Amino acid sequence: MRLYINDVAVRDGFQIEKAFIPTATKIEVVNQLSRTGLHKIEVTSFVSAKAVPALADANDVLAGIDRVPGVQNAAATAKKPDEVNGVVSASETHNRANINRTHAQSIAELPVMVKVAHEAGMKITMSLSTTFGCPFEGHVHEDVVLDFVERFREAGFDGISLADTTGMANPRQVLELTRKVLDRFPAPNDTYYTLHFHNTRGMGLANVVAGIEAGVRSFDGSVSGLGGCPFAPGATGNICTEDMVNMLEDMGHDTRVDLAKLLAVARRIPAVVGHDVPGQVMKAGQTLELHDPPEFLRP
Amino acid sequence: MRLYINDVAVRDGFQIEKAFIPTATKIEVVNQLSRTGLHKIEVTSFVSAKAVPALADANDVLAGIDRVPGVQNAAATAKKPDEVNGVVSASETHNRANINRTHAQSIAELPVMVKVAHEAGMKITMSLSTTFGCPFEGHVHEDVVLDFVERFREAGFDGISLADTTGMANPRQVLELTRKVLDRFPAPNDTYYTLHFHNTRGMGLANVVAGIEAGVRSFDGSVSGLGGCPFAPGATGNICTEDMVNMLEDMGHDTRVDLAKLLAVARRIPAVVGHDVPGQVMKAGQTLELHDPPEFLRP
Repeated sequence: MRLYINDVAVRDGFQIEKAFIPTATKIEVVNQLSRTGLHKIEVTSFVSAKAVPALADANDVLAGIDRVPGVQNAAATAKKPDEVNGVVSASETHNRANINRTHAQSIAELPVMVKVAHEAGMKITMSLSTTFGCPFEGHVHEDVVLDFVERFREAGFDGISLADTTGMANPRQVLELTRKVLDRFPAPNDTYYTLHFHNTRGMGLANVVAGIEAGVRSFDGSVSGLGGCPFAPGATGNICTEDMVNMLEDMGHDTRVDLAKLLAVARRIPAVVGHDVPGQVMKAGQTLELHDPPEFLRP
Repeated sequence: MRLYINDVAVRDGFQIEKAFIPTATKIEVVNQLSRTGLHKIEVTSFVSAKAVPALADANDVLAGIDRVPGVQNAAATAKKPDEVNGVVSASETHNRANINRTHAQSIAELPVMVKVAHEAGMKITMSLSTTFGCPFEGHVHEDVVLDFVERFREAGFDGISLADTTGMANPRQVLELTRKVLDRFPAPNDTYYTLHFHNTRGMGLANVVAGIEAGVRSFDGSVSGLGGCPFAPGATGNICTEDMVNMLEDMGHDTRVDLAKLLAVARRIPAVVGHDVPGQVMKAGQTLELHDPPEFLRP
């Protein structure tokens, strides 16, 4: 199966780091990621520098990165990204906490966002945060998700990301809810729907497998598993991109990602952030990297 | 679905710790685990104290633990466990490295092991290590696995564990190989086959979901994710029992495990071993443990 793998480490991962990651380092990581065969790379976020000081250098990062042909959303022509991504939360409480808007306010903005982006020559996708559960409200009703997907489609977004913002999704739920979304609103292309999982409770890769079973072909990850959870010190954040690629390639899928190159980027991240990261394959090696038997068995 | 969850931390986890875990601590952890609703608890291993000094106190641990009704293989009547577990590796190189026997030697011992255990009034199960891949030889042919399963059944073992010793299994392989095993040699009961996964490359819980799909109902884990990989410093070992239980209960399965009690045991483990452990739910909390919204949204 041809699958499309996106990396969000430079945005979703770095934004939770306490120490500011230098702009030049961000640019370097993006440029390295751009040469691994990934489909998309989230480069930065235009948010209040006061609210998220880690991403205060959004303009400089966008201006500084290389443009690698074939990599979407990765790089900039002048200072313009190929694609921008809006966000709204399926849970009203999370929407207010995250972007200080009611659902009604967010919904009213949808057509405006599409118009502005398209007039500027950019694609625009929409992420539905807390699709599979909200850390404040708990269970999110499936009808709320289906209603938002319908509104996003009607507004004319170029893609929809269903995001498990704090790692509450389980594989059964992913299979059932995602199937409902795809049944009711069929994907116009393989990258229209993206699943964005966090590994907060260890279920991330199991959810990816369930998402493929449901028909999704595009998945977000974070190189080295960089990131965290604002509610739980020590908990992990996004699923680890190279662990996902290692699994998917082992399963016979075609990600077009050069895993060795991606692992080389991952193995530089602990030095960049100054602490250990959750990635497993970067420590254990690819599945078929073999080991020498004990000495008494060697010829 | 009624599922059966076993814990191997006190054996598979503690055996890789550099510092010796005091016998009283092992007994305490076993006794706590025995009160969480787990189906089986691996208590220790009778191995050479020279080869595995961490388990040199096997007799004392077995003699010291409480016997909790309903918990199999957990405790001792005098010094006798309810069940013993033999091991052979699907890969010949790993078999020689692990137990210093050729396949022919291991196969010759099978009926003897069953006879000795049954005459002593104990059940005996057999683990097939490296079922899904060998760190020395790589790919393990499915026919080798099917042949061993047939031999174990013919020898009269009371159960068979298919073990992914160094975390090389992927969900597609688990589904396909385990289905073949169960199709050719149907399970006489729900706990006859056990899947024993390691999370070395992050695929552990995805493999559990695939194993359920294939028809297996019994799974091993290690509380707090205790354990490691002898080939990769810093890599994780067994899948984390409470992360597995959290996922399975979220999916609507019935594990009979008291997750809050199990988490309480898990949260004591870092102090026991003196370092961080891979468990996720112990850091992030159960899926529906909700959080307060930001202050400006509180009534």
